[in-house]
Amino acid sequence: PMRPYLKDPAAIDEASVAAVRREARLERFPDGLADLALRLIQACGMPDIADRLSVSPGAVEAGRRALAAGAPVICDCEMVAAGLIRRDLRSEVIVTLNDPATAPMARALGTTRSAAATELWQDRLEGAVVAIGDAPTALFHLLEGLDKGWPKPALILGFPVGFVGAAESKAELSADPRGCDFITLRGRRGGPSMAAAAIGALAKGPA
Amino acid sequence: PMRPYLKDPAAIDEASVAAVRREARLERFPDGLADLALRLIQACGMPDIADRLSVSPGAVEAGRRALAAGAPVICDCEMVAAGLIRRDLRSEVIVTLNDPATAPMARALGTTRSAAATELWQDRLEGAVVAIGDAPTALFHLLEGLDKGWPKPALILGFPVGFVGAAESKAELSADPRGCDFITLRGRRGGPSMAAAAIGALAKGPA
Repeated sequence: PMRPYLKDPAAIDEASVAAVRREARLERFPDGLADLALRLIQACGMPDIADRLSVSPGAVEAGRRALAAGAPVICDCEMVAAGLIRRDLRSEVIVTLNDPATAPMARALGTTRSAAATELWQDRLEGAVVAIGDAPTALFHLLEGLDKGWPKPALILGFPVGFVGAAESKAELSADPRGCDFITLRGRRGGPSMAAAAIGALAKGPA
Repeated sequence: PMRPYLKDPAAIDEASVAAVRREARLERFPDGLADLALRLIQACGMPDIADRLSVSPGAVEAGRRALAAGAPVICDCEMVAAGLIRRDLRSEVIVTLNDPATAPMARALGTTRSAAATELWQDRLEGAVVAIGDAPTALFHLLEGLDKGWPKPALILGFPVGFVGAAESKAELSADPRGCDFITLRGRRGGPSMAAAAIGALAKGPA
């Protein structure tokens, strides 16, 4: 016979929140960031990511304000966009990775499609919320674009993942965010679930 | 000035594969499973997940055969579907979470939408590849359905994530897979990126 398990969505969320609070020492954070960290941890099942968050002082407020005003959400891959709960968002969601212009641009620039895709963000960057949940090269290329004078997003959510460039691109973001607010997770971990969870927490506003 | 970083996709993949091979002891696995473990690790940045995989003996072959024959891929959430590389897949991709029948079914059954969504899989389960990357209740409900005589999928990819039911549902799958092949990651970790990466590895076939 099947072991018993929780089926009520509210009871599941309550038990999940309680489990995270028991393990993650969220009281170290201001309220808004504590809520965001909670949602990130629920998305990945790893309380210890709370120890590796790097966040600019105004990031949560900047993200909430931008989303409340309907600023666009710009994602580096379709998985981030698919993870957004649209009923909580007034924003347009933009993904340029599969735009027909991206692959030729990547060849012309000698870089990845993910990096080239950020070139197509320029018109929409001003005041936007950028959510990078996959590609280190997208974050690196965005930072290079900002160095060249691209418009500044309101917030950069830096959650690229993996073994080549993820830790390095996020360290670069933390060390010099080019005047933008940012929320990032140091090291190799990250991914579209975390990027989407961050947007979800910011879109809901204060709990 | 920006630190230097790799921009060539082939060089990035090569460096990433080399990093994983240095850390994850993939030689413990047969070739097909080694390749799948590699892709899972790249998707999450965590070599130690190799130590917590639980896999039925015929799982990789069953998954490859099913996908090569164009069997449907049934996902528990849109993020898994969005993570699939469609050019490598002949399969129809099915997600019923947002089907209009799902929410009323969840209320009628007293369970989550994710669990209720699996009720709509029954006609397509025979020989399918099921990819669960989000909801423990979807995996639990599928196992209960199999106990009631639902058709058997060729392979269950069990990657639900989180603090309530994820570890338990995956332990249940490993302990009694109801005659199905399975690949799962014990514990709280999982997620749509891993579920999608598993499909990607199986769809490509032998390296």
